[in-house]
Amino acid sequence: MKKYQLMAPGPTPVPSNVLLAMAQPMIHHRTPAYEALFTEVRAGLKKLFQTAQDVIPFTCSGTGALEAAVVNTLSAGDTVVVVRAGKFGERWVEIATAYGVNVVELVAPFGETVPAARVQEALAKTPGVKAVLTQHSESSTGVLHDVASYAAVTRGHDAILIVDAVSSLGIADLQMDAWGVDVVVAGSQKGLMLPPGLAFCAVSEKAWRHVAASKLPKYYFDLAKERAANAKNDVRFTPAVSIVVGLREVFRMLEAEGYPNVFRRHDRLARATRAGVEALGLQVFAKTNPSPALTPVLAPRGIDSEQIVAAYSQTHNITIAGGQGEMKGQLFRLGHMGYAADFDVIVALSALEQVLASLGVPVDFGASIRGAQKVFAERV
Amino acid sequence: MKKYQLMAPGPTPVPSNVLLAMAQPMIHHRTPAYEALFTEVRAGLKKLFQTAQDVIPFTCSGTGALEAAVVNTLSAGDTVVVVRAGKFGERWVEIATAYGVNVVELVAPFGETVPAARVQEALAKTPGVKAVLTQHSESSTGVLHDVASYAAVTRGHDAILIVDAVSSLGIADLQMDAWGVDVVVAGSQKGLMLPPGLAFCAVSEKAWRHVAASKLPKYYFDLAKERAANAKNDVRFTPAVSIVVGLREVFRMLEAEGYPNVFRRHDRLARATRAGVEALGLQVFAKTNPSPALTPVLAPRGIDSEQIVAAYSQTHNITIAGGQGEMKGQLFRLGHMGYAADFDVIVALSALEQVLASLGVPVDFGASIRGAQKVFAERV
Repeated sequence: MKKYQLMAPGPTPVPSNVLLAMAQPMIHHRTPAYEALFTEVRAGLKKLFQTAQDVIPFTCSGTGALEAAVVNTLSAGDTVVVVRAGKFGERWVEIATAYGVNVVELVAPFGETVPAARVQEALAKTPGVKAVLTQHSESSTGVLHDVASYAAVTRGHDAILIVDAVSSLGIADLQMDAWGVDVVVAGSQKGLMLPPGLAFCAVSEKAWRHVAASKLPKYYFDLAKERAANAKNDVRFTPAVSIVVGLREVFRMLEAEGYPNVFRRHDRLARATRAGVEALGLQVFAKTNPSPALTPVLAPRGIDSEQIVAAYSQTHNITIAGGQGEMKGQLFRLGHMGYAADFDVIVALSALEQVLASLGVPVDFGASIRGAQKVFAERV
Repeated sequence: MKKYQLMAPGPTPVPSNVLLAMAQPMIHHRTPAYEALFTEVRAGLKKLFQTAQDVIPFTCSGTGALEAAVVNTLSAGDTVVVVRAGKFGERWVEIATAYGVNVVELVAPFGETVPAARVQEALAKTPGVKAVLTQHSESSTGVLHDVASYAAVTRGHDAILIVDAVSSLGIADLQMDAWGVDVVVAGSQKGLMLPPGLAFCAVSEKAWRHVAASKLPKYYFDLAKERAANAKNDVRFTPAVSIVVGLREVFRMLEAEGYPNVFRRHDRLARATRAGVEALGLQVFAKTNPSPALTPVLAPRGIDSEQIVAAYSQTHNITIAGGQGEMKGQLFRLGHMGYAADFDVIVALSALEQVLASLGVPVDFGASIRGAQKVFAERV
């Protein structure tokens, strides 16, 4: 028996109590039972997003809600600034381009970030920029972009700041209202430890003004119409009922732990993972601001990272992820977000030692565990 | 104890074995386990849609896939013909209009259908029509439109036939390839007895040529790009993994029953329901071609149908649905699709007798059951 372990950077494991809550008999979405559920979930979303604004759910993957952010706030011919430092930065470019929006790209090499000063400079230099689009946690590189500083720039400008927080919400602190972030997008299958299929857009007052001016066509992802339905505790289209049921369970878990503790837990898991892989002589890929959601690691010289991913799977029944885009073959990515705890990191590192040894890499067995354990032993 | 019974026309009850299959530990969508699952599901979809074409899944509600059908086959300024004889016919008009597509409406009163001759006439009279859009089962009225005859018209014309089969697929026979239907749209939460959150587009060769010419912007719902990913047994975006897992279970159930039997079962449930309500002196709303998916019924004179819906819920813990749009207050709608069997109809009718009596309507107790039982006793 090899226990199956899902340690990829999303989808992430779903706790059994949540799976069983979702396995309850289906309910209709226009009933008192669903209305009570939706009321509780809408309140939980505001806490999660740290906003007084409504958070609008859509039945879709995270990318659907990224598209919603674009088509609701922009018009064809508009110009936006995109922080592009990984595969998900490229996704913003692809979506904007598909809708005839011009993109000024602020490129950083994979593994690095774009300083807020470059955002400021781009806004100063480019007339009429309507929005700045970025990730919070860039899942392809494991870098956390400095959203607070980007927001400090856009707050003094007509442009809105749109943040893909799919792999950071409920993982890293993102203070939407306090920092002045305008649109925050998240999904169900990362920090929220749910199956994929539900995603969210939270929208600031400033961004709602952009919504009013937006001319891009939309129907399914129409934020203003969905907001109006939500204001009556209703939805325009049949929602992903079972995932909404699961979300209530998740909010009860997260709020019992307390968000500051949730963020500290993820930070600890990430630091322990980094300490572990570095103790094996491996190099964490993020050169700056490593994300608390996942840890991409460079494969040892001469080893294709896909071999590491395959050995995790085939020998140990553990799913991790490889490199994406230009990093394919060079990186393996360990997820530690959502339903993730200290000893999951110990498992991931123990498996890594076995995997490396099986590929002929000299391994000081136990070294990665020692590194991680020291982090876990720290007095908080 | 009042047993909860979901008897609305979608979402529909999910069988316990499917709920429990979906409650298995989350798996990643880029693993051998998911690839085997997706291979089986893709094969099952072709059988369900009665097509040799690929059927493309999207993570969204049914309406998302309706939008996908429009944005992938049309361009702004195109003209389409819409069969509008209910709320979902109106939805086609709304989607087309949102994307700058001109609509020639073929209107029939709620409860009636549009004969194929009117479709033929509209195509003859209107130059350059690109598509005919219709429902198969119009859930707001309980009428089944004659898709086979519409297809006989469009087969000899450049226009493609796009069919919203959200509440008919796996319920009523829809022979996509044999009839020559070009785009068929369906969702997970009706005949497929799954939670909402997964929807599908199947596309004919003729329609793929329209896709190649379409200029409407799209990204999340890009059929051609999703088809290319599916051809490698992959998906572009994280799919609704748990619903796909459930879909495999559902296909095993449906294929064990056999689709001809599935269609016969639904036809029988619908005929029994109609016989039952008519035995109580009530009037089935569909004046022609009643749908096997659901039975909308006119409330007795002097009774608001919302009172009937409320009594079902409050007194008997049964969810049915009321009238939509202009029929609000006049209709109640009984669903009998998906995980629905003979004695569910008996329950729905027994409750109806109690509900009517409680509202002061004289009821010949047992009359509706007698009507339904005679249908069930027929030799097949």
